[in-house]
Amino acid sequence: MNLKEMVGYKAAEFVKDGMTVGLGTGSTAYYMVEAIGKRVKEDGLQIVGVTTSFKTADHARALGIPLKDIDEVEKIDLTIDGADEISSQYQGIKGGGAAHLFEKIVANLSDKNIWIVDESKLVDELGAFPLPIEVVHFGSGQLFKLFEKKGYKPTWRNDKEGKQLVTDSGNLIIDLNMGLIEEPLKLAKWLDSLTGVVEHGLFLNCVNTVIVGTSEGPVVEEVNR
Amino acid sequence: MNLKEMVGYKAAEFVKDGMTVGLGTGSTAYYMVEAIGKRVKEDGLQIVGVTTSFKTADHARALGIPLKDIDEVEKIDLTIDGADEISSQYQGIKGGGAAHLFEKIVANLSDKNIWIVDESKLVDELGAFPLPIEVVHFGSGQLFKLFEKKGYKPTWRNDKEGKQLVTDSGNLIIDLNMGLIEEPLKLAKWLDSLTGVVEHGLFLNCVNTVIVGTSEGPVVEEVNR
Repeated sequence: MNLKEMVGYKAAEFVKDGMTVGLGTGSTAYYMVEAIGKRVKEDGLQIVGVTTSFKTADHARALGIPLKDIDEVEKIDLTIDGADEISSQYQGIKGGGAAHLFEKIVANLSDKNIWIVDESKLVDELGAFPLPIEVVHFGSGQLFKLFEKKGYKPTWRNDKEGKQLVTDSGNLIIDLNMGLIEEPLKLAKWLDSLTGVVEHGLFLNCVNTVIVGTSEGPVVEEVNR
Repeated sequence: MNLKEMVGYKAAEFVKDGMTVGLGTGSTAYYMVEAIGKRVKEDGLQIVGVTTSFKTADHARALGIPLKDIDEVEKIDLTIDGADEISSQYQGIKGGGAAHLFEKIVANLSDKNIWIVDESKLVDELGAFPLPIEVVHFGSGQLFKLFEKKGYKPTWRNDKEGKQLVTDSGNLIIDLNMGLIEEPLKLAKWLDSLTGVVEHGLFLNCVNTVIVGTSEGPVVEEVNR
Protein backbone atom coordinates (compact mmCIF):
# COMPACT_ATOMS: atom_id res chain seq x y z
CA MET A 1 0.00 0.00 0.00
CA ASN A 2 1.50 3.35 -1.00
CA LEU A 3 1.15 6.43 1.21
CA LYS A 4 -1.73 7.90 -0.81
CA GLU A 5 -3.64 4.63 -0.65
CA MET A 6 -2.95 4.37 3.08
CA VAL A 7 -4.45 7.77 3.94
CA GLY A 8 -7.31 7.29 1.49
CA TYR A 9 -8.36 4.10 3.25
CA LYS A 10 -7.78 5.60 6.70
CA ALA A 11 -9.99 8.61 5.88
CA ALA A 12 -12.81 6.37 4.67
CA GLU A 13 -13.08 5.07 8.27
CA PHE A 14 -14.38 8.51 9.32
CA VAL A 15 -17.47 8.05 7.17
CA LYS A 16 -20.56 6.89 9.07
CA ASP A 17 -24.00 5.63 8.06
CA GLY A 18 -26.40 8.41 7.12
CA MET A 19 -23.74 10.96 6.22
CA THR A 20 -23.68 13.22 3.22
CA VAL A 21 -20.03 13.09 2.16
CA GLY A 22 -18.09 15.46 -0.06
CA LEU A 23 -15.77 13.48 -2.32
CA GLY A 24 -12.57 15.24 -3.31
CA THR A 25 -10.55 15.10 -6.50
CA GLY A 26 -7.00 14.03 -7.27
CA SER A 27 -4.60 11.13 -6.99
CA THR A 28 -4.96 10.77 -3.20
CA ALA A 29 -8.71 11.38 -3.07
CA TYR A 30 -8.98 8.63 -5.69
CA TYR A 31 -8.13 5.98 -3.08
CA MET A 32 -10.56 7.47 -0.56
CA VAL A 33 -13.36 7.19 -3.13
CA GLU A 34 -12.29 3.64 -3.84
CA ALA A 35 -12.28 2.80 -0.12
CA ILE A 36 -15.73 4.33 0.41
CA GLY A 37 -17.02 2.47 -2.64
CA LYS A 38 -15.76 -0.75 -1.09
CA ARG A 39 -17.55 -0.02 2.19
CA VAL A 40 -20.77 0.76 0.32
CA LYS A 41 -20.55 -2.47 -1.66
CA GLU A 42 -19.20 -4.85 0.97
CA ASP A 43 -20.48 -3.44 4.26
CA GLY A 44 -23.72 -1.86 3.07
CA LEU A 45 -22.57 1.61 4.18
CA GLN A 46 -25.46 4.05 3.67
CA ILE A 47 -24.26 7.44 2.48
CA VAL A 48 -24.87 10.06 -0.15
CA GLY A 49 -21.87 11.47 -1.99
CA VAL A 50 -21.43 14.99 -3.40
CA THR A 51 -18.60 15.17 -5.90
CA THR A 52 -16.09 17.94 -6.61
CA SER A 53 -15.38 17.22 -10.28
CA PHE A 54 -16.81 15.40 -13.27
CA LYS A 55 -13.92 12.96 -12.93
CA THR A 56 -14.72 12.04 -9.33
CA ALA A 57 -18.41 11.79 -10.23
CA ASP A 58 -17.61 9.23 -12.93
CA HIS A 59 -15.42 7.27 -10.53
CA ALA A 60 -17.95 7.26 -7.67
CA ARG A 61 -20.80 6.32 -9.99
CA ALA A 62 -18.81 3.40 -11.36
CA LEU A 63 -18.29 2.17 -7.79
CA GLY A 64 -22.00 2.37 -6.98
CA ILE A 65 -21.79 5.23 -4.48
CA PRO A 66 -25.19 7.01 -4.43
CA LEU A 67 -24.70 10.64 -5.48
CA LYS A 68 -26.67 13.85 -5.17
CA ASP A 69 -26.13 17.17 -6.87
CA ILE A 70 -24.72 19.80 -4.55
CA ASP A 71 -27.92 21.82 -4.89
CA GLU A 72 -30.05 18.88 -3.75
CA VAL A 73 -28.50 18.49 -0.29
CA GLU A 74 -29.24 20.47 2.85
CA LYS A 75 -25.63 20.39 3.97
CA ILE A 76 -22.56 18.18 3.84
CA ASP A 77 -21.50 16.38 7.00
CA LEU A 78 -17.94 15.61 6.02
CA THR A 79 -15.72 16.25 3.03
CA ILE A 80 -12.52 14.33 2.40
CA ASP A 81 -10.09 15.76 -0.12
CA GLY A 82 -6.43 15.94 -0.93
CA ALA A 83 -4.25 19.05 -0.69
CA ASP A 84 -1.18 20.16 -2.60
CA GLU A 85 0.47 21.90 0.31
CA ILE A 86 -0.37 22.30 4.00
CA SER A 87 1.45 24.81 6.19
CA SER A 88 2.32 24.44 9.85
CA GLN A 89 -0.70 26.70 10.50
CA TYR A 90 -2.88 24.20 8.60
CA GLN A 91 -3.55 26.60 5.73
CA GLY A 92 -3.61 24.95 2.33
CA ILE A 93 -3.06 25.26 -1.37
CA LYS A 94 -5.29 23.17 -3.61
CA GLY A 95 -6.01 23.11 -7.31
CA GLY A 96 -3.21 20.99 -8.70
CA GLY A 97 -6.00 18.94 -10.27
CA ALA A 98 -7.75 22.12 -11.49
CA ALA A 99 -10.79 21.27 -9.36
CA HIS A 100 -10.35 23.84 -6.58
CA LEU A 101 -13.45 25.88 -7.51
CA PHE A 102 -15.85 22.96 -6.98
CA GLU A 103 -13.70 21.69 -4.09
CA LYS A 104 -13.97 25.02 -2.27
CA ILE A 105 -17.72 25.26 -2.84
CA VAL A 106 -18.13 21.78 -1.35
CA ALA A 107 -15.67 22.46 1.50
CA ASN A 108 -17.49 25.66 2.49
CA LEU A 109 -20.77 23.76 2.81
CA SER A 110 -19.22 21.02 4.95
CA ASP A 111 -19.45 20.71 8.73
CA LYS A 112 -16.03 19.03 8.76
CA ASN A 113 -13.19 18.86 6.29
CA ILE A 114 -10.52 16.16 6.28
CA TRP A 115 -7.44 16.53 4.11
CA ILE A 116 -5.41 13.49 3.21
CA VAL A 117 -1.80 13.86 2.11
CA ASP A 118 1.51 12.11 2.07
CA GLU A 119 4.12 13.80 4.24
CA SER A 120 5.80 15.49 1.26
CA LYS A 121 2.88 17.97 1.21
CA LEU A 122 3.64 19.40 4.65
CA VAL A 123 5.57 22.66 4.57
CA ASP A 124 6.44 25.33 7.04
CA GLU A 125 4.92 28.14 4.99
CA LEU A 126 2.93 28.00 1.75
CA GLY A 127 4.30 28.86 -1.65
CA ALA A 128 6.63 26.20 -3.03
CA PHE A 129 3.62 24.68 -4.83
CA PRO A 130 2.32 26.93 -7.63
CA LEU A 131 -0.88 28.70 -6.59
CA PRO A 132 -3.70 27.94 -9.07
CA ILE A 133 -6.03 30.75 -10.13
CA GLU A 134 -9.17 29.94 -12.12
CA VAL A 135 -9.97 32.83 -14.45
CA VAL A 136 -12.63 33.60 -17.06
CA HIS A 137 -11.36 33.65 -20.66
CA PHE A 138 -12.26 37.30 -21.28
CA GLY A 139 -9.37 39.49 -20.20
CA SER A 140 -7.34 36.58 -18.82
CA GLY A 141 -4.29 37.85 -20.72
CA GLN A 142 -4.57 41.13 -18.83
CA LEU A 143 -4.67 39.28 -15.50
CA PHE A 144 -1.61 37.31 -16.61
CA LYS A 145 0.20 40.61 -17.29
CA LEU A 146 -0.86 41.96 -13.90
CA PHE A 147 0.55 38.89 -12.16
CA GLU A 148 3.79 39.27 -14.14
CA LYS A 149 4.05 42.90 -13.08
CA LYS A 150 3.57 41.84 -9.44
CA GLY A 151 6.47 39.40 -9.81
CA TYR A 152 4.27 36.34 -9.30
CA LYS A 153 5.76 34.47 -12.31
CA PRO A 154 2.48 33.26 -13.81
CA THR A 155 2.25 30.28 -16.16
CA TRP A 156 -0.73 28.99 -18.12
CA ARG A 157 -1.91 25.53 -17.15
CA ASN A 158 -1.99 23.04 -20.00
CA ASP A 159 -3.74 19.68 -20.20
CA LYS A 160 -2.03 16.39 -20.93
CA GLU A 161 -2.16 17.06 -24.68
CA GLY A 162 -0.33 20.34 -24.16
CA LYS A 163 -3.38 22.43 -24.95
CA GLN A 164 -4.63 25.15 -22.62
CA LEU A 165 -6.54 23.40 -19.84
CA VAL A 166 -10.26 24.17 -19.54
CA THR A 167 -11.88 23.57 -16.15
CA ASP A 168 -15.20 21.87 -15.42
CA SER A 169 -16.72 25.37 -15.39
CA GLY A 170 -15.19 26.25 -18.76
CA ASN A 171 -12.52 28.58 -17.38
CA LEU A 172 -8.71 28.73 -17.60
CA ILE A 173 -6.02 28.22 -14.95
CA ILE A 174 -3.07 30.51 -14.31
CA ASP A 175 -0.48 29.13 -11.85
CA LEU A 176 1.43 31.63 -9.75
CA ASN A 177 5.02 30.58 -9.01
CA MET A 178 5.48 33.28 -6.43
CA GLY A 179 7.52 31.49 -3.83
CA LEU A 180 6.96 31.98 -0.12
CA ILE A 181 3.49 33.38 0.66
CA GLU A 182 4.05 35.46 3.76
CA GLU A 183 0.49 36.72 4.21
CA PRO A 184 -1.95 34.21 2.73
CA LEU A 185 -5.06 35.97 4.12
CA LYS A 186 -4.04 39.28 2.56
CA LEU A 187 -3.22 37.62 -0.74
CA ALA A 188 -6.57 35.78 -0.74
CA LYS A 189 -8.47 39.04 -0.20
CA TRP A 190 -6.62 40.71 -3.06
CA LEU A 191 -7.27 37.79 -5.39
CA ASP A 192 -10.95 37.74 -4.35
CA SER A 193 -11.21 41.39 -5.31
CA LEU A 194 -9.87 40.90 -8.86
CA THR A 195 -12.50 40.93 -11.58
CA GLY A 196 -12.11 37.90 -13.83
CA VAL A 197 -10.71 35.69 -11.06
CA VAL A 198 -13.29 32.99 -10.42
CA GLU A 199 -11.46 31.30 -7.56
CA HIS A 200 -7.94 30.88 -6.21
CA GLY A 201 -6.36 27.84 -4.63
CA LEU A 202 -5.82 29.24 -1.12
CA PHE A 203 -7.95 27.25 1.34
CA LEU A 204 -7.67 29.19 4.57
CA ASN A 205 -9.11 28.28 7.98
CA CYS A 206 -10.81 25.38 6.28
CA VAL A 207 -9.49 22.02 7.39
CA ASN A 208 -10.46 20.29 10.66
CA THR A 209 -8.46 17.08 10.43
CA VAL A 210 -5.31 16.23 8.48
CA ILE A 211 -4.34 12.63 7.85
CA VAL A 212 -0.69 12.34 6.89
CA GLY A 213 0.77 9.28 5.27
CA THR A 214 4.19 8.40 6.71
CA SER A 215 6.40 5.38 6.40
CA GLU A 216 5.25 4.43 9.91
CA GLY A 217 1.57 4.59 9.00
CA PRO A 218 -1.16 7.24 8.85
CA VAL A 219 -0.97 10.06 11.41
CA VAL A 220 -4.20 11.84 12.30
CA GLU A 221 -3.80 15.49 13.31
CA GLU A 222 -6.78 17.38 14.71
CA VAL A 223 -6.78 21.11 14.04
CA ASN A 224 -7.93 23.51 16.75
CA ARG A 225 -10.09 26.27 15.26
CA MET B 1 -34.24 62.14 -30.17
CA ASN B 2 -35.05 60.24 -26.98
CA LEU B 3 -33.00 60.70 -23.80
CA LYS B 4 -30.93 57.54 -24.34
CA GLU B 5 -30.09 58.56 -27.89
CA MET B 6 -29.23 62.08 -26.71
CA VAL B 7 -26.64 60.94 -24.15
CA GLY B 8 -25.30 58.26 -26.48
CA TYR B 9 -24.52 60.86 -29.12
CA LYS B 10 -23.19 63.34 -26.55
CA ALA B 11 -20.79 60.74 -25.14
CA ALA B 12 -19.44 59.90 -28.60
CA GLU B 13 -18.09 63.47 -28.74
CA PHE B 14 -15.59 62.55 -26.00
CA VAL B 15 -13.91 60.04 -28.32
CA LYS B 16 -10.75 61.34 -30.03
CA ASP B 17 -8.54 60.06 -32.83
CA GLY B 18 -6.08 57.40 -31.72
CA MET B 19 -8.05 56.28 -28.71
CA THR B 20 -8.74 52.72 -27.62
CA VAL B 21 -12.38 52.87 -26.56
CA GLY B 22 -14.34 50.46 -24.38
CA LEU B 23 -17.82 50.01 -25.81
CA GLY B 24 -20.54 49.27 -23.28
CA THR B 25 -23.64 47.14 -23.53
CA GLY B 26 -27.33 47.90 -23.22
CA SER B 27 -30.09 50.05 -24.62
CA THR B 28 -28.32 53.37 -23.94
CA ALA B 29 -24.84 52.21 -24.94
CA TYR B 30 -26.44 51.04 -28.18
CA TYR B 31 -26.82 54.65 -29.32
CA MET B 32 -23.26 55.53 -28.28
CA VAL B 33 -21.96 52.68 -30.45
CA GLU B 34 -24.17 53.89 -33.29
CA ALA B 35 -22.86 57.46 -32.90
CA ILE B 36 -19.23 56.31 -32.83
CA GLY B 37 -19.87 54.13 -35.89
CA LYS B 38 -21.22 57.21 -37.67
CA ARG B 39 -18.10 59.23 -36.80
CA VAL B 40 -15.86 56.39 -38.01
CA LYS B 41 -17.75 56.15 -41.29
CA GLU B 42 -18.49 59.80 -42.00
CA ASP B 43 -15.62 61.69 -40.33
CA GLY B 44 -12.86 59.10 -40.65
CA LEU B 45 -12.47 58.87 -36.86
CA GLN B 46 -9.51 56.57 -36.12
CA ILE B 47 -10.13 54.42 -33.06
CA VAL B 48 -9.96 50.86 -31.85
CA GLY B 49 -12.93 49.49 -29.96
CA VAL B 50 -12.95 46.88 -27.17
CA THR B 51 -16.39 45.43 -26.60
CA THR B 52 -18.11 44.32 -23.41
CA SER B 53 -20.43 41.64 -24.83
CA PHE B 54 -20.92 39.46 -27.87
CA LYS B 55 -23.96 41.62 -28.68
CA THR B 56 -22.02 44.88 -28.72
CA ALA B 57 -19.25 43.20 -30.73
CA ASP B 58 -21.77 42.22 -33.41
CA HIS B 59 -23.22 45.72 -33.45
CA ALA B 60 -19.85 47.48 -33.65
CA ARG B 61 -18.58 45.12 -36.34
CA ALA B 62 -21.67 45.77 -38.45
CA LEU B 63 -20.99 49.51 -38.21
CA GLY B 64 -17.38 49.08 -39.31
CA ILE B 65 -15.73 50.05 -36.01
CA PRO B 66 -12.27 48.41 -35.88
CA LEU B 67 -12.14 46.07 -32.88
CA LYS B 68 -9.44 44.42 -30.84
CA ASP B 69 -9.69 41.67 -28.29
CA ILE B 70 -9.25 42.92 -24.73
CA ASP B 71 -6.05 40.88 -24.43
CA GLU B 72 -4.53 42.55 -27.50
CA VAL B 73 -4.54 46.11 -26.15
CA GLU B 74 -2.06 47.77 -23.81
CA LYS B 75 -4.78 49.74 -22.04
CA ILE B 76 -8.09 51.41 -22.72
CA ASP B 77 -8.21 55.20 -22.88
CA LEU B 78 -11.92 55.68 -22.37
CA THR B 79 -14.91 53.43 -21.79
CA ILE B 80 -18.47 54.57 -22.31
CA ASP B 81 -21.22 52.46 -20.84
CA GLY B 82 -24.71 52.68 -19.42
CA ALA B 83 -25.66 52.13 -15.78
CA ASP B 84 -28.80 50.85 -14.12
CA GLU B 85 -28.56 53.05 -11.07
CA ILE B 86 -26.19 55.83 -9.97
CA SER B 87 -26.18 57.11 -6.40
CA SER B 88 -25.53 60.69 -5.26
CA GLN B 89 -22.02 59.44 -4.37
CA TYR B 90 -21.59 58.25 -7.99
CA GLN B 91 -21.55 54.60 -7.06
CA GLY B 92 -23.34 52.36 -9.55
CA ILE B 93 -25.28 49.20 -10.15
CA LYS B 94 -24.82 47.56 -13.53
CA GLY B 95 -25.75 44.21 -15.00
CA GLY B 96 -29.35 44.71 -16.09
CA GLY B 97 -28.12 43.48 -19.46
CA ALA B 98 -26.23 40.58 -17.82
CA ALA B 99 -22.92 41.94 -19.16
CA HIS B 100 -21.47 43.35 -15.95
CA LEU B 101 -18.60 40.84 -15.74
CA PHE B 102 -17.09 41.88 -19.08
CA GLU B 103 -18.10 45.51 -18.43
CA LYS B 104 -16.22 45.56 -15.12
CA ILE B 105 -13.12 43.94 -16.64
CA VAL B 106 -13.10 46.62 -19.36
CA ALA B 107 -13.88 49.44 -16.91
CA ASN B 108 -11.02 48.41 -14.59
CA LEU B 109 -8.56 48.62 -17.49
CA SER B 110 -9.76 52.07 -18.57
CA ASP B 111 -8.10 55.38 -17.80
CA LYS B 112 -11.51 57.08 -17.83
CA ASN B 113 -15.06 55.80 -17.53
CA ILE B 114 -18.11 57.69 -18.75
CA TRP B 115 -21.57 56.48 -17.81
CA ILE B 116 -24.55 57.57 -19.86
CA VAL B 117 -28.03 57.46 -18.38
CA ASP B 118 -31.40 59.09 -18.53
CA GLU B 119 -32.31 60.94 -15.35
CA SER B 120 -34.53 58.11 -14.10
CA LYS B 121 -31.36 56.18 -13.19
CA LEU B 122 -30.21 58.73 -10.61
CA VAL B 123 -31.02 57.78 -7.04
CA ASP B 124 -30.02 59.01 -3.62
CA GLU B 125 -28.77 55.60 -2.47
CA LEU B 126 -28.44 52.33 -4.40
CA GLY B 127 -30.81 49.41 -4.10
CA ALA B 128 -34.11 50.01 -5.86
CA PHE B 129 -32.66 48.30 -8.93
CA PRO B 130 -32.07 44.57 -8.38
CA LEU B 131 -28.37 43.81 -7.86
CA PRO B 132 -27.15 41.25 -10.43
CA ILE B 133 -24.79 38.49 -9.28
CA GLU B 134 -23.11 36.28 -11.88
CA VAL B 135 -22.59 32.80 -10.43
CA VAL B 136 -21.15 29.50 -11.66
CA HIS B 137 -23.73 26.73 -12.16
CA PHE B 138 -22.21 24.37 -9.59
CA GLY B 139 -23.68 25.15 -6.18
CA SER B 140 -25.67 28.13 -7.43
CA GLY B 141 -28.75 26.80 -5.66
CA GLN B 142 -26.82 26.92 -2.37
CA LEU B 143 -25.86 30.55 -3.01
CA PHE B 144 -29.52 31.29 -3.76
CA LYS B 145 -30.49 29.78 -0.40
CA LEU B 146 -27.78 31.82 1.36
CA PHE B 147 -29.12 35.03 -0.18
CA GLU B 148 -32.65 34.05 0.89
CA LYS B 149 -31.46 33.48 4.44
CA LYS B 150 -29.83 36.92 4.42
CA GLY B 151 -33.18 38.44 3.39
CA TYR B 152 -31.88 39.60 0.01
CA LYS B 153 -34.92 38.23 -1.88
CA PRO B 154 -33.03 36.56 -4.73
CA THR B 155 -34.61 35.76 -8.09
CA TRP B 156 -33.18 33.82 -11.02
CA ARG B 157 -32.68 35.83 -14.19
CA ASN B 158 -34.48 34.42 -17.21
CA ASP B 159 -33.97 35.23 -20.87
CA LYS B 160 -36.66 36.49 -23.23
CA GLU B 161 -37.90 32.95 -23.83
CA GLY B 162 -38.40 32.48 -20.10
CA LYS B 163 -35.48 30.06 -19.80
CA GLN B 164 -32.68 30.56 -17.28
CA LEU B 165 -30.35 33.16 -18.74
CA VAL B 166 -26.79 32.09 -19.52
CA THR B 167 -24.15 34.83 -19.67
CA ASP B 168 -21.44 35.28 -22.30
CA SER B 169 -19.15 33.37 -19.91
CA GLY B 170 -21.62 30.51 -19.53
CA ASN B 171 -22.73 31.41 -16.01
CA LEU B 172 -26.10 32.21 -14.37
CA ILE B 173 -27.49 35.43 -12.91
CA ILE B 174 -29.17 35.81 -9.52
CA ASP B 175 -30.78 39.21 -8.92
CA LEU B 176 -30.89 40.47 -5.33
CA ASN B 177 -33.98 42.52 -4.54
CA MET B 178 -32.58 43.70 -1.26
CA GLY B 179 -33.79 47.29 -1.16
CA LEU B 180 -31.63 50.11 0.14
CA ILE B 181 -27.92 49.23 0.14
CA GLU B 182 -26.53 51.13 3.10
CA GLU B 183 -22.91 50.02 2.84
CA PRO B 184 -22.10 49.15 -0.78
CA LEU B 185 -18.34 48.76 -0.11
CA LYS B 186 -18.97 46.28 2.68
CA LEU B 187 -21.50 44.37 0.60
CA ALA B 188 -19.09 44.25 -2.36
CA LYS B 189 -16.34 42.79 -0.18
CA TRP B 190 -18.65 40.11 1.16
CA LEU B 191 -19.85 39.20 -2.32
CA ASP B 192 -16.24 39.11 -3.56
CA SER B 193 -15.41 36.62 -0.81
CA LEU B 194 -18.17 34.16 -1.75
CA THR B 195 -17.00 31.08 -3.64
CA GLY B 196 -19.10 30.57 -6.76
CA VAL B 197 -19.78 34.28 -7.25
CA VAL B 198 -17.98 35.29 -10.44
CA GLU B 199 -18.88 38.98 -10.28
CA HIS B 200 -21.49 41.28 -8.78
CA GLY B 201 -23.04 44.39 -10.27
CA LEU B 202 -21.68 46.94 -7.80
CA PHE B 203 -19.35 49.34 -9.64
CA LEU B 204 -17.73 51.36 -6.87
CA ASN B 205 -15.32 54.28 -7.22
CA CYS B 206 -15.33 53.62 -10.94
CA VAL B 207 -16.97 56.39 -12.96
CA ASN B 208 -15.22 59.67 -13.87
CA THR B 209 -17.94 61.41 -15.87
CA VAL B 210 -21.70 60.96 -15.87
CA ILE B 211 -23.80 62.23 -18.76
CA VAL B 212 -27.44 62.53 -17.79
CA GLY B 213 -30.22 62.86 -20.32
CA THR B 214 -32.82 65.40 -19.22
CA SER B 215 -35.71 67.05 -20.99
CA GLU B 216 -33.51 70.16 -21.21
CA GLY B 217 -30.65 68.31 -22.87
CA PRO B 218 -27.62 66.29 -21.76
CA VAL B 219 -25.97 67.33 -18.49
CA VAL B 220 -22.29 66.43 -18.04
CA GLU B 221 -21.24 65.83 -14.43
CA GLU B 222 -17.54 65.40 -13.61
CA VAL B 223 -16.80 63.21 -10.60
CA ASN B 224 -14.01 64.20 -8.21
CA ARG B 225 -11.98 61.15 -7.20
